[in-house]
Amino acid sequence: MITNVNELDLKIESAHAAYEAARNVAPEERANWLSAIARNLEDHASELVALAAKETHLAEPRLRGELARTTFQLRLFASEIANGDHFSATVDHKDDGWGMGPRPDIRRVNVPLGVVGVFGASNFPFAFSVMGGDSASALAAGCAVVHKVHEGHFQLGLRTSQIVVQALASVSAPSGLFSAVSGREAGERLVDHPLIKAIGFTGSTSGGRALFDRACRRPEPIPFFGELGSINPVFVTEKAWTLRRDIILSEYVDSFTLSMGQFCTKPGILFAPTADRGELLEVLRRSLDGKSSAPLLNERLREGFDKSFSKVSTMAGVTTLIPGGGKSVSLPAVLITTTDMIRRRPKLLREEMFGPATLIVQYERGENLVHLAEMFEGQLTSSVHAEPDEDLTDLVGVLRDRSGRLLWNAWPTGVTVTYAQHHGGPYPATTASGATAVGTAAIGRFMRPVAFDSFPASHLPPALKDDNPWGIRRRVDGRWVNPTETHGVTE
Amino acid sequence: MITNVNELDLKIESAHAAYEAARNVAPEERANWLSAIARNLEDHASELVALAAKETHLAEPRLRGELARTTFQLRLFASEIANGDHFSATVDHKDDGWGMGPRPDIRRVNVPLGVVGVFGASNFPFAFSVMGGDSASALAAGCAVVHKVHEGHFQLGLRTSQIVVQALASVSAPSGLFSAVSGREAGERLVDHPLIKAIGFTGSTSGGRALFDRACRRPEPIPFFGELGSINPVFVTEKAWTLRRDIILSEYVDSFTLSMGQFCTKPGILFAPTADRGELLEVLRRSLDGKSSAPLLNERLREGFDKSFSKVSTMAGVTTLIPGGGKSVSLPAVLITTTDMIRRRPKLLREEMFGPATLIVQYERGENLVHLAEMFEGQLTSSVHAEPDEDLTDLVGVLRDRSGRLLWNAWPTGVTVTYAQHHGGPYPATTASGATAVGTAAIGRFMRPVAFDSFPASHLPPALKDDNPWGIRRRVDGRWVNPTETHGVTE
Repeated sequence: MITNVNELDLKIESAHAAYEAARNVAPEERANWLSAIARNLEDHASELVALAAKETHLAEPRLRGELARTTFQLRLFASEIANGDHFSATVDHKDDGWGMGPRPDIRRVNVPLGVVGVFGASNFPFAFSVMGGDSASALAAGCAVVHKVHEGHFQLGLRTSQIVVQALASVSAPSGLFSAVSGREAGERLVDHPLIKAIGFTGSTSGGRALFDRACRRPEPIPFFGELGSINPVFVTEKAWTLRRDIILSEYVDSFTLSMGQFCTKPGILFAPTADRGELLEVLRRSLDGKSSAPLLNERLREGFDKSFSKVSTMAGVTTLIPGGGKSVSLPAVLITTTDMIRRRPKLLREEMFGPATLIVQYERGENLVHLAEMFEGQLTSSVHAEPDEDLTDLVGVLRDRSGRLLWNAWPTGVTVTYAQHHGGPYPATTASGATAVGTAAIGRFMRPVAFDSFPASHLPPALKDDNPWGIRRRVDGRWVNPTETHGVTE
Repeated sequence: MITNVNELDLKIESAHAAYEAARNVAPEERANWLSAIARNLEDHASELVALAAKETHLAEPRLRGELARTTFQLRLFASEIANGDHFSATVDHKDDGWGMGPRPDIRRVNVPLGVVGVFGASNFPFAFSVMGGDSASALAAGCAVVHKVHEGHFQLGLRTSQIVVQALASVSAPSGLFSAVSGREAGERLVDHPLIKAIGFTGSTSGGRALFDRACRRPEPIPFFGELGSINPVFVTEKAWTLRRDIILSEYVDSFTLSMGQFCTKPGILFAPTADRGELLEVLRRSLDGKSSAPLLNERLREGFDKSFSKVSTMAGVTTLIPGGGKSVSLPAVLITTTDMIRRRPKLLREEMFGPATLIVQYERGENLVHLAEMFEGQLTSSVHAEPDEDLTDLVGVLRDRSGRLLWNAWPTGVTVTYAQHHGGPYPATTASGATAVGTAAIGRFMRPVAFDSFPASHLPPALKDDNPWGIRRRVDGRWVNPTETHGVTE
């Protein structure tokens, strides 16, 4: 079941050949490939969800929802590439009167990078795995994909891969355009192989950094789109706390316990004004009451969670408010400390407890939240809970510099797939803060621009021809032109 | 004159404070800053050109043209950011009927990265130095700039920096938004400093790779936009050669001798059908006749050129057609070899001779140019010279995979600054193949997206407010909306 080096090389070579065969395909045809994958995944939904439930301990409704998200994403990307926005097609006609001197006819289009290596995530067996956001956006971009199956849902990974390969074959996409490999050695070799031109990765900061370093050390370094760890701090103002304390705490519990806290967007730290701990305990207990529990995703993840939880909970100054624990099933835990302790041990702000645990940090009334926010490294998300008439410009400004997504009176778990979504953030949230792992903007990660200078119409790619045969939106001589407008050569 | 570590840290901290003071400034004001710099450079044109001529040995008309290009670029970027396209502002209103389940109100905008370190190039004392493309695009993006002055035009670098600082002060831009440093130690520390969030670099492959590695090794790795070396191969088809040999050779000579061959886009290798070498010599001599010569940029560059020229010219199978040489002034040189030799010594395709030398590679009639093209690494440019009725789809496809810009019956030197320009390419042409060093698209390198989720209007950045106060083009609920159209909340 483990891919050896020869098999891996063959799959990568086959993927490269498929990429070459597919690189000039019209966007509609490529969109059709994505839709075919979505259909075939849906046709096998019951089988896949059952497999996933068995391997990950995640609840079936959550898994059905995740699969629906995955197929929705494939179809959204299909419609997006049919529009052609991902090409960023730009046409500058020859202009002898151009300000810095005569310019030649020059046109730019985004082209796919080649074969992309994608590492699946443990906590999203569908949406960030075999045909998750990285694979879907790489295929949408025109790349081929070699996917490293995650050990945590290995049978599911292999079966999903079969279904994807079958779907692509059914619509006559080039053979080898998608394939799966497994094993640690194959994963490392995947990052090293000269025909691999980019990596998509979702996982831990340590594992992701090691592979990022590997990608940078190659003779030809390649972009490494790694989504790593995040604490996702939440800042509650005094005013919001006074008016809505119990509601905020109840929503906080809902968010941090979702899928047993195994989300990269789990709120890991909540800053709230000092309050009676007995009262807090009461409200938290009420909110936790009736929450269903389940085993964590797998043994390795469980060990990691136990280790980080024990590290944080045994620090001097950190009190266990709700102990959580349990052998096969992990009950949610809440730790509590003060800003004094945070200032003495800023490392507390960097310790992700990946699982059902969170830390409340109590601040004194009048304390400056901006200074606390400044202590954070890069985050996927940061949230504020405040009243409409409060001015949080400075706090939002500091969080903006450290985060990919900012939320206001909302919770970071649940990442919708839209045009505006950004799921990224400065390191260590990701290894490429300019890129998103979710939303249609994810497609652009796997493309790069090429300019065609003084080219005859016969050899221009369709996206750049004057008659715009693909009917895409383009920028022509500085002006954006919708496909319905005529835009021949301007004088 | 050399910046010590304390001075450097102070300049970076001051730049960071200026970035923070300036980050919410309206695009029109920022555009005004760029225009003020352009004006002040023009006001000091004679002084600057004289200084540059003295330090670089480049001819005055070339230097005047380069300065004009630099100020044009500043003004083009100013008008570009006033349009607001660089924000990629995207608004998705709350939608309970969204395909994967209800979505919150989510909006995305590009924000500046922070302080950018910019390394000046030896061969473009204006256009790729103090206020060249990297600095201009970083300032346009909303970043602050700390510039490492190049030793090759040190006095010019210091003086230009003063003029830039003066211009920024005259329009009340925050103090510290631009500053200059010098010395090797300062350069390394610039890459390491935690407040530096990106690097722009133009220079040699070895120097650039060393700094790229340094940027990757940081606790928080940062994007390194390095423009390194390129051979810029030119492929002449048999048909074009038969019909236009002498014209092609004459244009080739014009291109490779421009500014003494000290361009990253110099055509370093030309593939042409086998021809009588005596005849070739005749045509080349005629074309070279009357070309003015000048000393190379500086002694260090001269030594590098001599070394690489001697390495290539003494390889077995390489013949010196035109010897070039000379002590203080370097005369242009032409080497010649065959595809047989190339196949035996593919390293020949990777040896950039930065200066007035080029290599003709003769191929046999009927030989497959595609196979030769496949031997190349990443290039800034690749060119073909062919007749209109020839089908070069395969050759262009292979070159597309290896190049940032493709040219047809045109020469790579002379890189116009436009909307469609792309000056980049796969490694080792650059360290970031998705980025361009020239053209308006260069601005986006120094920005990253941030999403605002469920935010009240009071705390949304202007680019994302429903009433679009900056009047920029945005994508709203999937549809691009020009500022003149109304686009309130959709249902």
